[in-house]
Amino acid sequence: MNNLIASLVELLDPSTVLTGADISEKYHADWSGADPCQPLALLKPKTTQQLSEIMALCHQHDQPVVIQGGLTGLAGGATPQSGEIAISLERMNGIEELDATAMTVTALAGTPLQVLQDAAEDRELFLPLDLGARGSCNIGGNLATNAGGTEVIRYGMTRSMVLGLEAVLADGTVINAINKMVKNNSGYDLKHLFIGSEGTLGIVTRVVLQLQPKSRSSHTALCALNSYESVTKLLVELKRSLGSGLTGFELMWDSYYNKVLEVLPSLTSPFQENHTYYLLLEYKDNNQTLGAERFESALFEQLESGLIDDALIAQSHQDADKFWQIRDGIGELFQVLGPVSNQDVSLPLEQIGPFADDLDQRLKAKYNNIGVLLFGHIGDNNLHVCAYTGRDEDKARINEDIMLMISEYAGAITAEHGIGVLKRDFLALSRTPSEIALMKTLKMAMDPKGILNPKRVI
Amino acid sequence: MNNLIASLVELLDPSTVLTGADISEKYHADWSGADPCQPLALLKPKTTQQLSEIMALCHQHDQPVVIQGGLTGLAGGATPQSGEIAISLERMNGIEELDATAMTVTALAGTPLQVLQDAAEDRELFLPLDLGARGSCNIGGNLATNAGGTEVIRYGMTRSMVLGLEAVLADGTVINAINKMVKNNSGYDLKHLFIGSEGTLGIVTRVVLQLQPKSRSSHTALCALNSYESVTKLLVELKRSLGSGLTGFELMWDSYYNKVLEVLPSLTSPFQENHTYYLLLEYKDNNQTLGAERFESALFEQLESGLIDDALIAQSHQDADKFWQIRDGIGELFQVLGPVSNQDVSLPLEQIGPFADDLDQRLKAKYNNIGVLLFGHIGDNNLHVCAYTGRDEDKARINEDIMLMISEYAGAITAEHGIGVLKRDFLALSRTPSEIALMKTLKMAMDPKGILNPKRVI
Ligand SMILES: Cc1cc2nc3c(=O)[nH]c(=O)nc-3n(C[C@H](O)[C@H](O)[C@H](O)COP(=O)(O)OP(=O)(O)OC[C@H]3O[C@@H](n4cnc5c(N)ncnc54)[C@H](O)[C@@H]3O)c2cc1C
Ligand SMILES: Cc1cc2nc3c(=O)[nH]c(=O)nc-3n(C[C@H](O)[C@H](O)[C@H](O)COP(=O)(O)OP(=O)(O)OC[C@H]3O[C@@H](n4cnc5c(N)ncnc54)[C@H](O)[C@@H]3O)c2cc1C
Repeated sequence: MNNLIASLVELLDPSTVLTGADISEKYHADWSGADPCQPLALLKPKTTQQLSEIMALCHQHDQPVVIQGGLTGLAGGATPQSGEIAISLERMNGIEELDATAMTVTALAGTPLQVLQDAAEDRELFLPLDLGARGSCNIGGNLATNAGGTEVIRYGMTRSMVLGLEAVLADGTVINAINKMVKNNSGYDLKHLFIGSEGTLGIVTRVVLQLQPKSRSSHTALCALNSYESVTKLLVELKRSLGSGLTGFELMWDSYYNKVLEVLPSLTSPFQENHTYYLLLEYKDNNQTLGAERFESALFEQLESGLIDDALIAQSHQDADKFWQIRDGIGELFQVLGPVSNQDVSLPLEQIGPFADDLDQRLKAKYNNIGVLLFGHIGDNNLHVCAYTGRDEDKARINEDIMLMISEYAGAITAEHGIGVLKRDFLALSRTPSEIALMKTLKMAMDPKGILNPKRVI
Repeated sequence: MNNLIASLVELLDPSTVLTGADISEKYHADWSGADPCQPLALLKPKTTQQLSEIMALCHQHDQPVVIQGGLTGLAGGATPQSGEIAISLERMNGIEELDATAMTVTALAGTPLQVLQDAAEDRELFLPLDLGARGSCNIGGNLATNAGGTEVIRYGMTRSMVLGLEAVLADGTVINAINKMVKNNSGYDLKHLFIGSEGTLGIVTRVVLQLQPKSRSSHTALCALNSYESVTKLLVELKRSLGSGLTGFELMWDSYYNKVLEVLPSLTSPFQENHTYYLLLEYKDNNQTLGAERFESALFEQLESGLIDDALIAQSHQDADKFWQIRDGIGELFQVLGPVSNQDVSLPLEQIGPFADDLDQRLKAKYNNIGVLLFGHIGDNNLHVCAYTGRDEDKARINEDIMLMISEYAGAITAEHGIGVLKRDFLALSRTPSEIALMKTLKMAMDPKGILNPKRVI
């Protein structure tokens, strides 16, 4: 046992320090598919104080560490690299306060997202952050990756619901930036350093989030449109008529829509004819009757105007579920498509349509028998691209082709999932040299020994 | 003429470098009341490139500079200090693009806020940032101070509408973080370093803002309530029933309300009886008829429930204006009250009522004939305190008493206006030593010579 590990065992109780075969494989990798690796040790602190002491020791010993939340990250950031100690936040778990009047919740970073969603729901409140990994990802991981998910069009990314946080720096210093106030201009707003920096500038240990009142009614429709220009015009019209009640604007290109229906025989298209674009809309309101009226009249207006070709309003939860199953069918597609280059990118609104056409053409010209499926949260500039040839060796090349095209179109190489390890070599395609130099200046200032999530992001 | 100034004159055209009596008094101070001071020189660059060259030179010469936007700041940050060169952004003025589909506007930092508001309005759009100084303040200054103003309850502070920016660092490096995308997790989100840091970490030169669709109808009411608990309960109920349409929740304590009516004879109370709290509500909707119905029924419900004692819904713009005149009467009060300790603080929601009572009692016990007027944007945790004895010498003491009490109640010493020079000595009352140390680390990393807005904030 090396010196540092011995000191750690002394500092913490033995159940908190695991080594060798005692480390379950779960901690060898996150969901991203990055190569698994057994960490030097796995630490599971229970308190901020313990974590602070761990970091002080690691800092003293120049020991690199990797931070692990729920390990659902898709950028490889939480996968250990050779010689790193893994620190899991899973025992720093629990809600400390839910203030139903101020509509805030304060929780430890290792609390699973779904636990927070349920606690809000119990008080007729709503945490406007949701993603497929809700049962496993932790709120600390959500902050570290500035997770997106559904409803970003209305409530923004994770960042926009964070009021305050506590974090531990690379040298063990505890930054208490807990805050429950909407307005607070008393000095630099330090929390933004830790949100979206993927654990490279500090470890989030505690968070305060702004909750929202729960909506009383939800309305869903599936629309068909025949040009990308109609899609963007419709977005403008619906933002005007539905205001911030517009919570979902999910576009599916026909390639994606048809593939899902082909692969999943339980689903059928509710439309008679084929269209170029299919759009899933969701509107939320505080009043069931008024909400339904407003949604229907907004859609009717746009059918009349010709922006929408055809539209079906869900008449029941079952209808709405059926529409969402088409959108969510991507999960099942992954199981049958073979190796997929799966990219989450963003682009200026007017560029998404042209980019999609151009990408489709270029990839088809370059690769034999390639399938290109496109869909995305267009209202948030977010496009998902899934391209597959069935050949494993094409995947990395396709990834790179897409990254290079994103750079040409001045888009962002990752909208939601972050840079981590997997996109680190591409960062310069989305950011200028002076931006990257400033990121390094920050990293150097806050973690001069480079021990916190090294070789991630920058 | 010193060396540096000679080099600056050489670099820029002469009209861009002013010295001595050529510098109008306007540039000697901002609105805060901080002691005016003539800067060593006044520079008015026209482009980012010029500004970058200026900073490179100043950096080389260890020359401190102060950044000036519209000079409406209330924290003394833009007032020159002895030996500083002032750099005004006023010539870097203009809208570069208004994208009505993406609902974004890109402008130079010296553009007055009102110009942006009007440009949005022309396209039936809305920039959700408004404050009394709209005609003079610049968007760069608004970002630097993370300005608040009205409608924060719905749209957040300035920070929440910034999609991207360009900034110049202390050494002249240009950081191009221009971005029009809602989702972008490609590396650290650097813009937050420059928002709310009051020009101490970089100079904002260009901004991209998210606009909103213009609401089609606005509804106003004045309510009377008799306990602070009713106020917070009502806030919860209205957030539930009106959703994000609730755009104004302005509380006035009776002390404030009565004083305004006493001093401004043109105004009369629309209520028969006296109450403890008066609340101005504003609701916005996209539909005039439906909006009016929803607002009325929400208020009716709370009259029935007993949370509201009495309520008057404005039946016309004139009515609405009359209600707002009471709330905005503070501007005119300042002209008659003599020396006022005017504080903009924030507190956790449940603490505002008890704090207000406690403050009123303590100040009245300590100072003879003191007047204490209270009002605020309660939905954003923001309380304004105006306390006056008529005696100039009391002002600084009262300021300090309020700051100390804010610290006791774990509030923020400034909600909106920032720290600047005037609250610098009090920063430690709102922030922990490790937070302040981290602020200094950032400052040292980004401006190692301390030439950018020195002795402001930290
Ligand atoms: C099925 C599925 C669906 C998904 N859907 C979405 C989606 O819609 N939108 C989206 O944005 N993402 C999505 N993701 C990605 C992932 O869920 C998110 O990135 C999530 O926020 C990661 O949380 P985590 O706790 O699992 O973090 P981890 O995977 O454990 O870590 C992610 C990164 O954050 C760091 N980190 C973790 N915790 C902390 C902490 N407390 N302090 C500092 N750094 C920390 C890690 O070192 C790592 O770099 C999805 C993933 C899956 C598997
Ligand atoms: C009548 C009145 C009403 C007001 N109401 C409100 C209100 O409701 N809410 C609110 O928040 N504030 C309010 N203020 C305060 C003030 O208007 C805001 O702080 C405003 O944002 C300042 O903008 P400015 O361009 O005038 O900045 P300035 O006063 O010129 O500068 C303010 C600070 O920002 C720095 N700075 C300015 N421009 C830049 C730049 N481009 N890059 C970097 N740093 C820069 C300066 O160095 C200084 O530290 C009010 C002021 C007045 C006079």
